[in-house]
This record gives sequence, C-alpha cells and structure tokens, in this order.
Amino acid sequence: MDILGIRAAYEEASTGYQEGGIPIGSVILDERGAILGRGHNQRIQKSSPTLHAEIAALEDAGRQKATVYRKATLVGTLSPCSMCTGAILLYKIPRIVIGENINFKGDEDLLRDRGVEVTVLDNRECTSLMRRFIQERPEEWNEDIGEAHFN
Amino acid sequence: MDILGIRAAYEEASTGYQEGGIPIGSVILDERGAILGRGHNQRIQKSSPTLHAEIAALEDAGRQKATVYRKATLVGTLSPCSMCTGAILLYKIPRIVIGENINFKGDEDLLRDRGVEVTVLDNRECTSLMRRFIQERPEEWNEDIGEAHFN
Repeated sequence: MDILGIRAAYEEASTGYQEGGIPIGSVILDERGAILGRGHNQRIQKSSPTLHAEIAALEDAGRQKATVYRKATLVGTLSPCSMCTGAILLYKIPRIVIGENINFKGDEDLLRDRGVEVTVLDNRECTSLMRRFIQERPEEWNEDIGEAHFN
Repeated sequence: MDILGIRAAYEEASTGYQEGGIPIGSVILDERGAILGRGHNQRIQKSSPTLHAEIAALEDAGRQKATVYRKATLVGTLSPCSMCTGAILLYKIPRIVIGENINFKGDEDLLRDRGVEVTVLDNRECTSLMRRFIQERPEEWNEDIGEAHFN
C-alpha cells in the first residue's frame, strides 16, 4: 500500500519524463490518505514557468476549504522550491513528504521553522530519475529553478 | 507615464472585479519598464487555487531566462501571499512594488530578509477596490488566503 503517496508521485514524475518533461511529480493526500490531486511539472509540456509538480497537484485538487488543506499531506518526488514552499505555507498544509533532496534542496528549513512536518525519504528511484534528467538536459533544469546555465 | 506599472496592475484588478473575481492584479516589468506579462487572480473565473495575480502574470510572461527575471520588477495591487513571495524568491526577482498592504500583509519581511527591494505605495484606489471586495465576499477572500471563514 502506498501509504505515503510516494509511489503515485513517482508515477507522475515518470509520466512527465516520458512526455519529454522535467520528471518531478506530486500528490496531495487528504486526512485519510486518499489522493485529492496529482500532477507533474509542466514547464516543457505547457511552456509554463509556474506549473511545478506541487502547483499542478494543487490545481488538480481544485478549490478546497481551508480545513481540508489543514489536514492534508503534500508529497513530492523532490525537495520543494521556494514557490512550492510558499504554496504549502499559504494553505497551512501541516506535513510534507519528499522523495529526495540530493539533486536539489529547497526551503525545507523555512518549512520546519514555520511548523511544517518534513519527512525526507531518500528514495532511490526518485533520486536516479531526477539525476538522469539533470545530466541529459541541464539547461531546462536550471531554468526550472531560476538558475542561469553557463555550459 | 506608468513608471511603476501600478496603473496596469490596477487595470488588471479592475478587470478581475468586473468578471466577478477577486480584484488583485499584477504585471512584470523588464529592466526598461516594459510589460513582460500581466494578469489577475483567477480563483473564481477558472476555479484555480494557484492562479493568484502574480502567478498569472508570470504565466503570461511565459518561460524566461534567469537573467531576465534578475532584472525584472514584479508589481502587484496587494501585498503578496507566501506562494507569490516564494515565486519571487525562486526567480530571484530583485524588486517588487506593492499597491497596498492594509487589506492584507504577506511575507514582506521574508522578501526583505532575502534582499528583495520592497516598495509599498499605499495606493488609495487599490486599497478601496480590495476593501470593497472583502466586504462583499468575505468567504471567497478568506479561501484565497487559506483562512477559514466562520461568519
């Protein structure tokens, strides 16, 4: 059973990779662990600078009451960037599960400082898929995290 | 001349209000002050929990190089929430201009701590349009900032 939602998040990342996109996936779980929304990074597919996986999952979940977010868990294959960190704080999502933070480490400390429970799984499949993409397409990856690419 | 872009941002907010939406508008200016992208909050119009005005303006600007963001200015009619604050930090946008922060004050201190130049205009039109919406539709406003509504 995919208690932590990481399998579904990885499936999203994998779908993104097959589409030629940046392989980061995310799901939002309700208080019972059911999936409220799921998505993957759409930078390349939709030419979107803001549809990171976590934002896509929030969009898929649609408009929810504040009370739903406050019992939800956001799961992502990779450590969240500042924007996605901010989305977690906006909706006061109390806990997040991260597949890995080796390829990129976002604002996890800010989340912890603000009381969010952060679990890092150190998942090998998430790490290896992301590493593969970064090696194959460093320019697009750098664009996604607001970094210039000089190679 | 709309040097600070606030007039265009207010026009976006006003369009949002006329559409029955939450009246917050935003524009992104390039280093010369030309508009790269513009948008307004789409919670009600597109049933979107993430298309805040600033996110809509970033989407409208499309995929941009890191070097473009690093010379840009983000202008919004209202103080940015945590998510939009995070988007500013992700893309390392060096300065923002805020119409007002009376109806809502976001994570301005975090932006300043991270070196972003924050200018608050205390604009009367922005303040009065936003106040009107909050009085008319408090439930939708609270939803937009992740707050429960108990009235």
